[in-house]
Amino acid sequence: MAFEITKDLLENVTLFITQKKNKALSELFSEMHHADIAEVLDELSFDEAVYIIRLLDSETTSEVLMDVDDDVREKVLKQLSAKEIAEEIDELDTDDAADIIAELPEKRKQAVMQQIEDEEHAKEIVELLRYDENSAGGLMAKELVKVNENWTILQCVKEMRIQAEEVTRVHSIYVIDNSGKLKGRLSLKDLLMASTRAKIADVYIPKVDFVVVNDEAEDVANVMRKYDLEAIPVVDELGILVGRITIDDIVDVIKEEAEKDYQLAAGITQDVEADDTIWELTRARLPWLFLGLIGGIGAFLIMENFQEMFSDNAVLFFFTPLIAAMAGNVGVQSSAIIVQGLANDDLKGSINNRLIKEMLLAALNGVILAIVLFGFIWIYGGDFQKAFAISISLIVVIIVAGLIGTFVPLFLDKRGIDPAIATGPFITTSNDIFGILIYFWIAKVIIGF
Amino acid sequence: MAFEITKDLLENVTLFITQKKNKALSELFSEMHHADIAEVLDELSFDEAVYIIRLLDSETTSEVLMDVDDDVREKVLKQLSAKEIAEEIDELDTDDAADIIAELPEKRKQAVMQQIEDEEHAKEIVELLRYDENSAGGLMAKELVKVNENWTILQCVKEMRIQAEEVTRVHSIYVIDNSGKLKGRLSLKDLLMASTRAKIADVYIPKVDFVVVNDEAEDVANVMRKYDLEAIPVVDELGILVGRITIDDIVDVIKEEAEKDYQLAAGITQDVEADDTIWELTRARLPWLFLGLIGGIGAFLIMENFQEMFSDNAVLFFFTPLIAAMAGNVGVQSSAIIVQGLANDDLKGSINNRLIKEMLLAALNGVILAIVLFGFIWIYGGDFQKAFAISISLIVVIIVAGLIGTFVPLFLDKRGIDPAIATGPFITTSNDIFGILIYFWIAKVIIGF
Repeated sequence: MAFEITKDLLENVTLFITQKKNKALSELFSEMHHADIAEVLDELSFDEAVYIIRLLDSETTSEVLMDVDDDVREKVLKQLSAKEIAEEIDELDTDDAADIIAELPEKRKQAVMQQIEDEEHAKEIVELLRYDENSAGGLMAKELVKVNENWTILQCVKEMRIQAEEVTRVHSIYVIDNSGKLKGRLSLKDLLMASTRAKIADVYIPKVDFVVVNDEAEDVANVMRKYDLEAIPVVDELGILVGRITIDDIVDVIKEEAEKDYQLAAGITQDVEADDTIWELTRARLPWLFLGLIGGIGAFLIMENFQEMFSDNAVLFFFTPLIAAMAGNVGVQSSAIIVQGLANDDLKGSINNRLIKEMLLAALNGVILAIVLFGFIWIYGGDFQKAFAISISLIVVIIVAGLIGTFVPLFLDKRGIDPAIATGPFITTSNDIFGILIYFWIAKVIIGF
Repeated sequence: MAFEITKDLLENVTLFITQKKNKALSELFSEMHHADIAEVLDELSFDEAVYIIRLLDSETTSEVLMDVDDDVREKVLKQLSAKEIAEEIDELDTDDAADIIAELPEKRKQAVMQQIEDEEHAKEIVELLRYDENSAGGLMAKELVKVNENWTILQCVKEMRIQAEEVTRVHSIYVIDNSGKLKGRLSLKDLLMASTRAKIADVYIPKVDFVVVNDEAEDVANVMRKYDLEAIPVVDELGILVGRITIDDIVDVIKEEAEKDYQLAAGITQDVEADDTIWELTRARLPWLFLGLIGGIGAFLIMENFQEMFSDNAVLFFFTPLIAAMAGNVGVQSSAIIVQGLANDDLKGSINNRLIKEMLLAALNGVILAIVLFGFIWIYGGDFQKAFAISISLIVVIIVAGLIGTFVPLFLDKRGIDPAIATGPFITTSNDIFGILIYFWIAKVIIGF
């Protein structure tokens, strides 16, 4: 059932566009899901994409616009008039509409808002624009089904039929009191099973999970994942029901968070894809490489400082890449575990306990690895003292690297900085330098030159 | 609204258990969500956890067992009799039940299955056990609401009331023909709006997304995410409706996939958490560190091989950590982008095009970094020839590292191996060795000693 973009399909589309065969194009796209159309547009040239957007009806294209790559959307929106954009906006749910409006330049924003025909819709979008995009308010939509606790089931079904017209998917029916405060929920199943004469107040479930408008997106995701929710109501500071968040938006939040962390760990500034331009990819990758360069220069300065040791202890210098690699690897391992624990909110206990545990763990790993390394140098014909010095240094370097890897993300998190930046090149580079410094220093003490 | 485990709560629970205050315990837990109870159990000692499981009713504890950490569940299940486990299984949906049964040793499996009272339930679980856990069949549940296309809406509502009793959440009503083949779907909204005398065949939507039992979990996740689905029906090879997958299970798949890739990139064998034992964490981390150790020994052997160069060209040796770091960083960056593109299924175009693009990108980054490095060595008082040799080597090393980082995951993917193992220590280590080898080789050619 998977949709695949074939070369034939793309060639056909391009051909139809050059020949202005609008009917053939409409037919071709009428059978396709908007997410598939978006994939096709991502592959077309920009002019071709605008051509298709103008050709299809605004109900389809509004959804397509939500699904295309950000850069394609930005370019297409630039090409459309304020009125055309407003028509797309009219078709969208408030959350998607607000996302698109938020991407527009300030002047265009106002021009588009004034062209929106449905005043209620426009008001709701303006409300949503006030919230931070990474908060519950920024994720929620205004479309939901709510009933008053004082109604009967029959009244409720009647009202619901009207409200449901505007709501793509009904998950729960939220129950409010006369002042609009969230009181509970009613499942569609309960509604289906209850007698039509029953009163809402008698059948609704007063226990309902909810989030507050200013809760962070990541926390909303954690709550919905933990309790297996498909939708969650959002209330304001007074407890008034103001919107709801659906799981499909949360799936995107989870995916984006994971990708961001993964890219940071790999030394890539967030938000690039393999198909971005070389220039975009360079901007995402170069800063981290510069950091590595500076670290490498630091290592150079340290080694240069110890160079008088070389004539008698050349072997020490040949093991610096090993020391640097181990320091980097251990640091990344321990920071990654902490970052993941923080993201999933399942780190318990104090920072001190974490550091002690990491120290024991690193010491265990370090001793095992040091024994192997000692064995290698010994068998290879190195002398005992040097083999001993290198192995002891390795243990200390691994312990220090583990502690840095554990402490830095915890520290950043306490300071309100995203701990994920502490993984990848950041930790590798600092551990390289610390590692090499400790290594030469300990070797000097043991060998005593 | 967030639930927090407080020290007081844990102390109370432990105290009640030692004093055998069962009533107080039941009251305490009766107000809590099963996911919260699971969190509490994860913090308790193992005997305490078993005590609570035995105390609470099996409807609650079956859900709790699904939510506790894997190791807690394994230990608790060992402690329960086959009959007790069968009681838990009876309360669970088929997909969860099959997951628990699958974790049991072969002999226990049979003992438990024979104790399950509901024969239909047992049959369905046996069917689910046949599928690979990473396939659509392994994810699906047998619980769903299906109606025959030949029924009327009224018949349908009647039947649904019966079926819905067993289904936790009704998303879509699936429409089948007399032979059980999936024909389409009926939304609850449509059902709510349609006349009771209408025939299903006249009102159902014949277009329905579905997956086949053997489709991979990751592909199912991509389809559901792309089309914003909350449930998807699963058919067998003949098109017969055999189950459905809900979004909450897919959220877990997405989360686990992302965590696995992240941990592999950080050099951690999958499936550990910060709170696991030191022994578990060592097993997850040590293999990758060994890989790093072998890489370091490789680097040692290369440098030793070039040691006669040292007296005249000490500076070359001092830059090996820089070269190794850059090779590692570039390799990780390029492999991470490829791995992510593969996971999201949005890599288009040939391998050759990818490699050419990466070569240009790496060359651009390499030249910029080489100019900075050249400048540094020059200003620092190094001689022109050496600065030139080091900088040219850096460019070549970065290009080669980028190509390896791009090629290896693509190659592994073609071979059906998870490309994510190519990120992290694997790519870093091989790039370290290649990088240092290329570096000394080029330097030797340019300086000509």
